[in-house]
Amino acid sequence: MTNNKKIKVGILGASGYTGSDLVRLLINHPNVDIKLLTAERKAGQTMADIFPHFIGHDLPILNKIGEIDWATVEVDVIFCALPHATSQEIIKGIFEQTSGKKQIKVIDLSADFRLRDPDTYKRWYGNDHTAIALQPRAIYGLTEYYRESVKSADLVACPGCYPTAILLALKPLLKQDLIKSEDIIIDAKSGVTGAGRSLRESNLFTEVSEAMNPYGVGHHRHMPEIEQELSVSAESAVTMSFTPHLVPMNRGELITAYVKLEENKTIEDLRKGLAVTCDKEHFMTLLKEDQMPATRMVRGSNNFVVNVYKDRIKGRAIVIAAIDNLVKGSSGQAIQNMNVMMGLDEECGLKQVALFP
Amino acid sequence: MTNNKKIKVGILGASGYTGSDLVRLLINHPNVDIKLLTAERKAGQTMADIFPHFIGHDLPILNKIGEIDWATVEVDVIFCALPHATSQEIIKGIFEQTSGKKQIKVIDLSADFRLRDPDTYKRWYGNDHTAIALQPRAIYGLTEYYRESVKSADLVACPGCYPTAILLALKPLLKQDLIKSEDIIIDAKSGVTGAGRSLRESNLFTEVSEAMNPYGVGHHRHMPEIEQELSVSAESAVTMSFTPHLVPMNRGELITAYVKLEENKTIEDLRKGLAVTCDKEHFMTLLKEDQMPATRMVRGSNNFVVNVYKDRIKGRAIVIAAIDNLVKGSSGQAIQNMNVMMGLDEECGLKQVALFP
Amino acid sequence: MTNNKKIKVGILGASGYTGSDLVRLLINHPNVDIKLLTAERKAGQTMADIFPHFIGHDLPILNKIGEIDWATVEVDVIFCALPHATSQEIIKGIFEQTSGKKQIKVIDLSADFRLRDPDTYKRWYGNDHTAIALQPRAIYGLTEYYRESVKSADLVACPGCYPTAILLALKPLLKQDLIKSEDIIIDAKSGVTGAGRSLRESNLFTEVSEAMNPYGVGHHRHMPEIEQELSVSAESAVTMSFTPHLVPMNRGELITAYVKLEENKTIEDLRKGLAVTCDKEHFMTLLKEDQMPATRMVRGSNNFVVNVYKDRIKGRAIVIAAIDNLVKGSSGQAIQNMNVMMGLDEECGLKQVALFP
Amino acid sequence: MTNNKKIKVGILGASGYTGSDLVRLLINHPNVDIKLLTAERKAGQTMADIFPHFIGHDLPILNKIGEIDWATVEVDVIFCALPHATSQEIIKGIFEQTSGKKQIKVIDLSADFRLRDPDTYKRWYGNDHTAIALQPRAIYGLTEYYRESVKSADLVACPGCYPTAILLALKPLLKQDLIKSEDIIIDAKSGVTGAGRSLRESNLFTEVSEAMNPYGVGHHRHMPEIEQELSVSAESAVTMSFTPHLVPMNRGELITAYVKLEENKTIEDLRKGLAVTCDKEHFMTLLKEDQMPATRMVRGSNNFVVNVYKDRIKGRAIVIAAIDNLVKGSSGQAIQNMNVMMGLDEECGLKQVALFP
Repeated sequence: MTNNKKIKVGILGASGYTGSDLVRLLINHPNVDIKLLTAERKAGQTMADIFPHFIGHDLPILNKIGEIDWATVEVDVIFCALPHATSQEIIKGIFEQTSGKKQIKVIDLSADFRLRDPDTYKRWYGNDHTAIALQPRAIYGLTEYYRESVKSADLVACPGCYPTAILLALKPLLKQDLIKSEDIIIDAKSGVTGAGRSLRESNLFTEVSEAMNPYGVGHHRHMPEIEQELSVSAESAVTMSFTPHLVPMNRGELITAYVKLEENKTIEDLRKGLAVTCDKEHFMTLLKEDQMPATRMVRGSNNFVVNVYKDRIKGRAIVIAAIDNLVKGSSGQAIQNMNVMMGLDEECGLKQVALFP
Repeated sequence: MTNNKKIKVGILGASGYTGSDLVRLLINHPNVDIKLLTAERKAGQTMADIFPHFIGHDLPILNKIGEIDWATVEVDVIFCALPHATSQEIIKGIFEQTSGKKQIKVIDLSADFRLRDPDTYKRWYGNDHTAIALQPRAIYGLTEYYRESVKSADLVACPGCYPTAILLALKPLLKQDLIKSEDIIIDAKSGVTGAGRSLRESNLFTEVSEAMNPYGVGHHRHMPEIEQELSVSAESAVTMSFTPHLVPMNRGELITAYVKLEENKTIEDLRKGLAVTCDKEHFMTLLKEDQMPATRMVRGSNNFVVNVYKDRIKGRAIVIAAIDNLVKGSSGQAIQNMNVMMGLDEECGLKQVALFP
Repeated sequence: MTNNKKIKVGILGASGYTGSDLVRLLINHPNVDIKLLTAERKAGQTMADIFPHFIGHDLPILNKIGEIDWATVEVDVIFCALPHATSQEIIKGIFEQTSGKKQIKVIDLSADFRLRDPDTYKRWYGNDHTAIALQPRAIYGLTEYYRESVKSADLVACPGCYPTAILLALKPLLKQDLIKSEDIIIDAKSGVTGAGRSLRESNLFTEVSEAMNPYGVGHHRHMPEIEQELSVSAESAVTMSFTPHLVPMNRGELITAYVKLEENKTIEDLRKGLAVTCDKEHFMTLLKEDQMPATRMVRGSNNFVVNVYKDRIKGRAIVIAAIDNLVKGSSGQAIQNMNVMMGLDEECGLKQVALFP
Repeated sequence: MTNNKKIKVGILGASGYTGSDLVRLLINHPNVDIKLLTAERKAGQTMADIFPHFIGHDLPILNKIGEIDWATVEVDVIFCALPHATSQEIIKGIFEQTSGKKQIKVIDLSADFRLRDPDTYKRWYGNDHTAIALQPRAIYGLTEYYRESVKSADLVACPGCYPTAILLALKPLLKQDLIKSEDIIIDAKSGVTGAGRSLRESNLFTEVSEAMNPYGVGHHRHMPEIEQELSVSAESAVTMSFTPHLVPMNRGELITAYVKLEENKTIEDLRKGLAVTCDKEHFMTLLKEDQMPATRMVRGSNNFVVNVYKDRIKGRAIVIAAIDNLVKGSSGQAIQNMNVMMGLDEECGLKQVALFP
């Protein structure tokens, strides 16, 4: 790629928080031109009409997906930030219309292509998958673990926010046989953007502020995805406990994982195991022994921070990690995948320092 | 006690949040007169000078403890809301000065008389206990479990806020052999008042707001107290895992406990076991099956809400409970104990509905 | 009224925040029995289903208004917490159905009977008033100024939250000719409960949190009501400037009023003028000279706090006041009116101390 | 300046929020190398020790100012983020030690060089100014109005946060004779970072959260600075009313200004007047007629947004503006000045989109 040829990107579903964070990050990405934005109900408006913090930025008018001719539209990469179940149809259509004519790469931020088993998909999401043929083509976009496959992929399924935090924390430990694959208990806490911009009573300021609420206990849809990927690292089927909680803050996700050490392993072994992975990754940091991961360390940035502690129960350890759910847990990770797919420096456009306070 | 003879109470350490919540609740207690308030550094000021929400209420001027003659002061009950380690000396002095002259009852809200074993106290709090002789006299003031002893006590040690929530949730289950005493993992979340009014960087709005922080991982001082009391119910030594987190809210505490079912026990058994206890208690509520405990249900009130859920890991259950850390977790529970000690209706002065939103 | 005969009350529209705060306060009112609760879309449910903080309280099941036979229902007082424009029809129906059969007193918390001039009503609310005949009967329920009329009223129109704070602050000064009636500028700040529980994007946590938003600049519906009542005190037509702002908090309203001193009047005169009124009122407090009104002083309580300061511009003063918008600004004031209408002590059931922190 | 010669900058007082936001922005500034960081009490530590969100960034160890040899240290520009009254001594020392040896440019973020009149300085800040000789050399760094002087300055005094928002909003209107210079009333609202990281009770989460507090009514130290600069634009002495309020949010400042139109001027004239200025400036945006400035539009960015509305009082207008107090109100503006002083594009390193939500 030469300097004067920028990547042309489109964002489908730009009126949600994930879509808008893609725009925020891509506006200043040195190798990208945002060429296409869609939002069905807000078509005809500008991003600044919907998100006034974009005032002053020159962006395409919002369009409807149905009005795009995929065979001719000048776009190299599509970010698909549409609701679950909607994505699969749209993406199938894009590939069909462009087949043999041009190459478009699709980065999907929904759950539609994350699960390898269509039955599991149906059981957790309630509908038949309508693009099963595309599934083998989809690469699970946890960049740190599927980088090589992502490089040549034309369809990447970005992980959910909880899976991202959990997998980055536990995969290094499982792969190195440092912790057991059984009895993994994860207590997760997320900011309210995790629930999107939908008009639900439970998302009102008055309901969330000054409050701490668990939700989806025992049946959150991120579970099968987490188990699928932990099982890969453990090389055996993992069933884990996962309980998310809603925190009165906008951004940020903290996971506290209670795990069992493998025989003869120590906390120091776990630290070393995490260090091996963190040291070679751009966006993963193992904190010092006395530091605790906190969401304010990563607000607005693509970073992941982690640490591990001795539990009071013998043979157990506590692994704590934090990410920004909208960045590393969603839009930032999607751009990281784009960088890999397009042969760019993986950090390109993702060097923002966290905004604190 | 006749109707026209109110209980005269004193509050030592009235300038902290625990002290001020005692005042808030006792002002409207129908059987109480607040006769004495102390605050060393603020002596000479009024409560309204320090806490302007008391403006318009007629309260004693703040005094210094050293200026009180315990043998003659007209007080029936002392609430001691002083820092840990300070309480023991003061309470020893009160009992010495009043011995043989008058009877004063002391309700201590600090940690000084919670631990039965002086060695455990020293190990966790770092100093020798200076009133060991008083320890056997101190009743652990978890009213629901020590009501009979509290009735005749003249020294009650109120539980910490985390222990209150955890013990009310798990003691019924352990006592009825519904859960195992091993491998109990507790993930706790607390509002910022849990840290008091002290000037620490970690308590600043800018550090806490829009953030989620774990703290005291593996070594929080409430641990030995929780284990002591869980062991009583389990009739064996319990060692548990406990990880607290700081949430950007003022009041409220949520605990998520990951426990193992005893053989052949089901979630329905656990529900029934909790119901047995909750049904006979004023301040304990088992929620309906599909409801989730949340701190907003109990803000400003003396209530405890709990529920139990099936875990995805076979043989495990998730128990979730919420209290207001300043009320049921501290000042409200102290008044509940006073009611029991003075032969009043246990709910007296504690009927406030939670403030929501 | 004898002790053993409690006032039977009904609350129409109990599923909103105003309705639920009426319930919170009336549950512990010593002279009240809640006999009737309505909520159209939630009929058949319990208050605890909708507002889980009421769990454990014995309350009537939610009903539909259309199913109530007003001629026979055993209710002495109706609180009407329905949306603007709905109230007038319902209240007209109540009076028609009970006329000549029984006496029911109605306390309306909507805007429907606040404006004396039907044309003004239509201009600001957009619809014709459908119960004009009832308007002369309606007493404006700013208790401190219409107490005598409220005593014998059977229809009381409770002021809006902003008008309450503004009128209590400025009426004493206008009536005593201490400030000029021209060029009154009011900058108001309100918590989010002021917007109710409606599902609007602007009420989402993510939109309000960490943000400060003005709204309704130059055209808020509370304006004509404020001007109507300021004009009464000024004995001349008042036109004022009023700009509300939304603050990321649940409860509380702060108004900052920029006013001109009358000739030869001083700040000290204004203090004295406010003191005259505050000293004789239960719920009004003039702060000390160096104290500043703040919403945390009144959270959850029926109190109003005020102070006055010298402005840097010669001849100008700054008057600052705070209330809890849901209590003194709505439900608490409604109960205060009920107390007056039913011959009870005005403070009855309204002695809650503010909840701080 | 060639590409391979970056500007070497030092930041004095890097452990405050202003200092840390300078670091956040300068890390990614393409023409800057951070060469020197100081923090007296934290000397020897890293930025990441104090502000863990800097983990992973390579930055100089914190130093003490006294240990720097200004004559030899390799620094082109010094940002001075020290407390008021401290700055003047340090800056005097820097210029004395470098005089005749090398040229260092100083950008001061304190109040020390903002006021032109030493008597005014003394009256508002309480101490004699100790570097009066430097004052004529100091350029007031409101870039949009002093750009030409800033270009050649070696000492720039950056405006306070409130002055920045107020002056950018009102100077265009005063200069173009669109509003009167008398009776300007400003109601300001600021996030908590405006108070810095100091350990004061009023900055605790528990005191600020769920609260709205006015402060410094009638005597805030930004007043003389605002009046000094408004007077320049009005070409006559301006005395204005200014009342700041503390809002429970981290970043952001909203000012609501109540002003009088000049004879025969309309709101449309004011809009046009603001448009003239905004259109030619990088960081100033006049919103559409129906949009309202809100702090979330500028969180973390160097932008200023403004709008103007008709007041209900005849002849008056309401001007509302918002900035991020730490960026455009402090660190961002300082970097904007550096860009001008060093001949860079004024937007360089300041293109961050606001972080929303």
